Amino acid sequence: MSVFQSLPGFREFYPEDCALRNFIFNCFRRTAETFGFEEYDAPIVEPTELFTAKSGSEIITQLFNFEDKGGRQISLRPELTPSLARMVGSRAQSMKKPIKWFSVGEQFRYERPQKGRLRSFYQFNADLLGDDSIEADAEIIALAIQTLRNFGLTCNDFHLRLSDRQLWMLFIKQHTCDENCMLAILGIIDKLEREEEAKSMEALEKVCPSMGEKILGDIKNLKSIHSLEGLRKFFEEFKVPSAAVNARIEEFAQLLARLDSFGLLDFVSIDFGIVRGLAYYTGFVFEIFERSGQSRALAGGGRYDDLIGKLGYANLSAVGFAIGDVTLGKILEEKNLTPKLLKSIHCFIVYTKKTAAVAMREMMLLRENSVGVDYCLAPAPFSRQLKAATQAGAKYAIIFGETEADASCAVVKNMALRSEELVEFPRIIEVISQ
Amino acid sequence: MSVFQSLPGFREFYPEDCALRNFIFNCFRRTAETFGFEEYDAPIVEPTELFTAKSGSEIITQLFNFEDKGGRQISLRPELTPSLARMVGSRAQSMKKPIKWFSVGEQFRYERPQKGRLRSFYQFNADLLGDDSIEADAEIIALAIQTLRNFGLTCNDFHLRLSDRQLWMLFIKQHTCDENCMLAILGIIDKLEREEEAKSMEALEKVCPSMGEKILGDIKNLKSIHSLEGLRKFFEEFKVPSAAVNARIEEFAQLLARLDSFGLLDFVSIDFGIVRGLAYYTGFVFEIFERSGQSRALAGGGRYDDLIGKLGYANLSAVGFAIGDVTLGKILEEKNLTPKLLKSIHCFIVYTKKTAAVAMREMMLLRENSVGVDYCLAPAPFSRQLKAATQAGAKYAIIFGETEADASCAVVKNMALRSEELVEFPRIIEVISQ
Repeated sequence: MSVFQSLPGFREFYPEDCALRNFIFNCFRRTAETFGFEEYDAPIVEPTELFTAKSGSEIITQLFNFEDKGGRQISLRPELTPSLARMVGSRAQSMKKPIKWFSVGEQFRYERPQKGRLRSFYQFNADLLGDDSIEADAEIIALAIQTLRNFGLTCNDFHLRLSDRQLWMLFIKQHTCDENCMLAILGIIDKLEREEEAKSMEALEKVCPSMGEKILGDIKNLKSIHSLEGLRKFFEEFKVPSAAVNARIEEFAQLLARLDSFGLLDFVSIDFGIVRGLAYYTGFVFEIFERSGQSRALAGGGRYDDLIGKLGYANLSAVGFAIGDVTLGKILEEKNLTPKLLKSIHCFIVYTKKTAAVAMREMMLLRENSVGVDYCLAPAPFSRQLKAATQAGAKYAIIFGETEADASCAVVKNMALRSEELVEFPRIIEVISQ
Repeated sequence: MSVFQSLPGFREFYPEDCALRNFIFNCFRRTAETFGFEEYDAPIVEPTELFTAKSGSEIITQLFNFEDKGGRQISLRPELTPSLARMVGSRAQSMKKPIKWFSVGEQFRYERPQKGRLRSFYQFNADLLGDDSIEADAEIIALAIQTLRNFGLTCNDFHLRLSDRQLWMLFIKQHTCDENCMLAILGIIDKLEREEEAKSMEALEKVCPSMGEKILGDIKNLKSIHSLEGLRKFFEEFKVPSAAVNARIEEFAQLLARLDSFGLLDFVSIDFGIVRGLAYYTGFVFEIFERSGQSRALAGGGRYDDLIGKLGYANLSAVGFAIGDVTLGKILEEKNLTPKLLKSIHCFIVYTKKTAAVAMREMMLLRENSVGVDYCLAPAPFSRQLKAATQAGAKYAIIFGETEADASCAVVKNMALRSEELVEFPRIIEVISQ
């Protein structure tokens, strides 16, 4: 006889795990709704083409892809954005803008399971489409920050590292006019924090022969800047065409001003170490990190104005982010920000063999009225049933003794106060609702 | 440029669809909790072996199975029960009995998509484990019925067809002593309602040569019985060993008595047309059908005491059911039992370019206090912003005029009553909470 295991990187959710998952999901949903976002969902399985055609090489190597019995190339979704682009793209004309949508769902990644990186994980995705203003970026960034705040996390716990692909691209254009090198260099910058310097150098030399050292030095300088004023000076000295740069720095200032109005500036750091791995970002990009030594990524997002057009629909600007459940869950547990999810039930029925029929009838009436009620499937001595009531976390025990039941009454016991009251059947619901 | 489609049999959930899905899921969860069931979940992808080894041939042909990049044979789960059996089986010793668990999750079936049968669907699964009493069967049946009642469905809309595999097996033993024929004949009976009679005859002849006609006649007689008294008479005339039959009919009576105490007898029909397709059922089995002409199946379940032992764990008795979301959703819509899920937001901010900063600050304070607030990303004439507030279904508009804002005030407008009140900023939350 074999004992089966679940697959590596997939989780089982026992009730205590499921309660934590629901706690996290509910906070995602509640926060999104306070921002006026509506929930949607897309299929968990999609044509592989949806992901490989437009999402850049990083996604391709990590796909959970296969051929179905009908010969279709299909994949478990590694991210939600391509499906979202299709859903919105195919109905964009009839939809009121801006479109503010969120989703809480499972995603899959075929990679070596390790701490904080599973093959199945959940993400809170939020996107704002059909508006290319800086204020749309600010709304999305505010939702990302406020979601984490609603878990009890403060600006001492995390910060949002804000960067801009447009300034990065203006920077790269100074070094190379080859448009094809752009994404390659962005990819190298994205990996800089996780890679040895020599390896990054080598990669840069491949893209821009004999300029690796110069570019790497400039990249490091830009990455070390953490103020608007610093950005202005850097690009001035760097002699990048000033109209484009100045206009973009002005927009950066506008974004920070809006986040200041929101009262969220303490959570935001200008940080060009952030580029985002996926190819489709076009504007401001950000990642949220825990501030502790481990500095784990909690979320990432940015503007991607070209994706929907690239999928063959009319152009539609878009900005969004995703927060994963795995790292977040770990941090909440470390910081004691998960609630005590104790088993509880409102009422527990105590009965005898003779009173079973009336007890069951009264129990179902309570359940029909949305009252949580549990009981021992077989009548046992009252002391054992009352012990079961305590273990179930019952607030009230409703005791159907034989004498009392004959008079259409039961004893309602408040388990915490240890007080008892003799109650006629029709009044039970009133007494246990107090 | 190609426009991608989603896969056949998979659904996209636009906000209005997602709201209906959440309405259904919430009713599942609420009802299960009133019965003292706890939520769990298992991986959506499992080793194929978990499903093929123990679940009978019907499931094998419908699997969404493939090989992953690590050479593992894996499947999208077609049902939750084998995963449940593993989760409970591996920890049964340390768990308090009875175990009352439910789950709301996605399942997959590779079959031709057709009306009411998709390749991806959701199920409400509830199981009671570690108790083999008739009262456990009754608790599960009561939960299945009460769940549908909580959607507003009545005994005029649906009924639960109750049957018993044990009596069916005693019946089959009278015709053949070959244990291997048992499941084959049960399979033929299961398909009887959907198959031409000649085909069933042929299949029976294959299993029990030259006895097909006799057996089919007897099956039809048993299927025509809808009362306990009828069952007693049928088996008496049929000369099945009386002790076993009588004991089982007594248990059948006990089950009906308990359901009567619950006030649910009107929902239950004795009906031996029900056998259940899966091989692992061992006792009472049931399916819930809509009563209309179409008579669509809404749910199915029963007792399966051997499955956990067969998976290599210590024996653990179990009874459970599943309700699918597709047929249920269709019926609720036909009967107008879905709520009007209109777009709504509690407050809508109306502001000018000059008051933007204070308006945004006050908005975030409300959102931090769990109040839903939306706004136009760019300030427009008040009339246009108020129109947007109406379209968003806002209860209150909070208008930040320039004169008022200078005095740290805003006008709170009740959109339904068209009444307005000048309110100092700190009192806004109080006024919109009335």
